Amino acid sequence: MPSRLGSSPADAEEGAILAPKFDADGLLTCVVTDVHSHGVLMVAHMNAEALRRTIESAEAWFYSRSRKELWRKGATSGHVQKVVELRVDCDQDAIWIKVEQAGAGACHTGRRSCFYRAVPLGSDARDGVALEFREAERVFDPGKAYPR
Amino acid sequence: MPSRLGSSPADAEEGAILAPKFDADGLLTCVVTDVHSHGVLMVAHMNAEALRRTIESAEAWFYSRSRKELWRKGATSGHVQKVVELRVDCDQDAIWIKVEQAGAGACHTGRRSCFYRAVPLGSDARDGVALEFREAERVFDPGKAYPR
Repeated sequence: MPSRLGSSPADAEEGAILAPKFDADGLLTCVVTDVHSHGVLMVAHMNAEALRRTIESAEAWFYSRSRKELWRKGATSGHVQKVVELRVDCDQDAIWIKVEQAGAGACHTGRRSCFYRAVPLGSDARDGVALEFREAERVFDPGKAYPR
Repeated sequence: MPSRLGSSPADAEEGAILAPKFDADGLLTCVVTDVHSHGVLMVAHMNAEALRRTIESAEAWFYSRSRKELWRKGATSGHVQKVVELRVDCDQDAIWIKVEQAGAGACHTGRRSCFYRAVPLGSDARDGVALEFREAERVFDPGKAYPR
């Protein structure tokens, strides 16, 4: 995939050619939403290779910053993500994929979504803010899905 | 807001206290969705101060990496975002806010969402990939909303 580092902001915004703007670590931010519930399942990162494989295979691939490796979502757990639509944002440094989530959930903790806790609005955030668990029931056993 | 750098991954995942994990630049990734359409409007970043102000005011504040400044969404354009719900992800390095978008749109290009172009799946991504414009009509005049 050409890096197109020379493209201008106007080209990135109005152009009809994919010209991803990777950060200093070679990564884009990727938001994953569920095509049925419309909720955000997870946020992860893609390098050029993960983006290429996702586009070509219509299955979600990411790059793990902690493990420093390319990662096919669901390779271990079976909870693959079939990509229904892939969009890029105005300045082409973020990707949004709408997916069919295989298996019960996307989060390694066993929940459907990684976003299972809410911050009460209006809280004084200088002190410790108590989180509220929402849609936080476990839909699979992470010990079985991710054997160590 | 305490930095809680000493908290363990298990604390971050199962704890009931907000313990945001800022990156090396002091930032979190923030996904903004429309509470009515459920679509992703934009992806931006928050530093500790932006997160604190967002929680306390229930209006979206971000940190602009390019301008290196705190930024209340809509301060210039009037297109403020009233936060209806704020969630944090499992490892507490990403935030999801559901918002009521004031004005016609969230994107500085004049569109409702920053994600107005799709990448056709199955494309050979080693070559230049043609983008498809979707929901890309301008809903406001960016020249008027963001006077230079």
